Amino acid sequence: MSQDPITRLALELGRLPGIGERSAARLAYYVIKASHGAGRQSLAHDLAKALTECVDQARFCTVCQNLTTTEVCSVCSDPRRDKTIICVVEGVADLRALEASGGYRGVYHVLHGSLSPLEGVGPDDLRLRELIARLTGDVHEIILATNADVEGDATALYVARLVKPQGLKVTRLASGIPMGGELEFVDQATLGRALEDRRDF
Amino acid sequence: MSQDPITRLALELGRLPGIGERSAARLAYYVIKASHGAGRQSLAHDLAKALTECVDQARFCTVCQNLTTTEVCSVCSDPRRDKTIICVVEGVADLRALEASGGYRGVYHVLHGSLSPLEGVGPDDLRLRELIARLTGDVHEIILATNADVEGDATALYVARLVKPQGLKVTRLASGIPMGGELEFVDQATLGRALEDRRDF
Repeated sequence: MSQDPITRLALELGRLPGIGERSAARLAYYVIKASHGAGRQSLAHDLAKALTECVDQARFCTVCQNLTTTEVCSVCSDPRRDKTIICVVEGVADLRALEASGGYRGVYHVLHGSLSPLEGVGPDDLRLRELIARLTGDVHEIILATNADVEGDATALYVARLVKPQGLKVTRLASGIPMGGELEFVDQATLGRALEDRRDF
Repeated sequence: MSQDPITRLALELGRLPGIGERSAARLAYYVIKASHGAGRQSLAHDLAKALTECVDQARFCTVCQNLTTTEVCSVCSDPRRDKTIICVVEGVADLRALEASGGYRGVYHVLHGSLSPLEGVGPDDLRLRELIARLTGDVHEIILATNADVEGDATALYVARLVKPQGLKVTRLASGIPMGGELEFVDQATLGRALEDRRDF
């Protein structure tokens, strides 16, 4: 490993997803410039502190596998949430996106991935056992909210097969034309699905 | 400031240039996942350590203002470099790019910015005094290697006017068609400049 701390910072930043060699170098220079002479309150120190604290305190909710700093996350511990509906998502970012939409009052289950044989991700790599363990009595609907891509569809299918024998209602997020989308710019696959899944009006 | 360390990490990451709210959240989740159970050798701890060490040790070369961890940077302290030619660049990233090209054996001067009245950057915000202080006797050429944009051109013009009275040779990096570039895809301004600056063949 290089002994030059500036190069080392760029290397570490380059380990983040979507940040290439050049971006990493640019970020490193930015951080150093922004932090120069700023002492303990600098961007670099703030970021370093946030990283350490976050990783030291972050854990997975024992119920839904959401990221949290407490044993049970804020969604699962909220008495107003409907525990009879579980929305299955691939990642924490998806959960946050659904929460931001404001339209959901049930609870979640985070799989932490999607089935992808090419990348060597199989059923055992997802938090499926934890999902099965939750399906006792009270739960009556599972919403499959995995991505609308090949891996997401495969994962949804797998989960559906796993939970349907328990007599649960299993639903999937609607696919179709995005709100505000113009037909001529919508891709063929989406348009085909929207036509197939057309609803009464 | 939010008390939730996960949100706080995303906020801190969002302070980096080019990283929006969503990217920051995605990076935060990635870092936490990549660091989960990895202990002191985790991505988060490595990155935090690199940030702190880098900012604590990084300083500006007393000669050329390059980022360094020593008093004089590796370029300025290299006896094989030609100290009679100074290449003036806007930032450290530009210096590294020129070094990577392998075609330059002189030394540098980093301005740490470019003239930009709109952003409130005037001559006093650049390391111009330090440049003038270096122009004693030995130096015989100044290469203006600021960006080929409006700010870079304005900065080059300003520096040229500043150093020309000292009787120095002042040059500017060539502008023209990028190597491997196809004429039909080159923008008008570049094509116009390439035509204007055409050379004997």
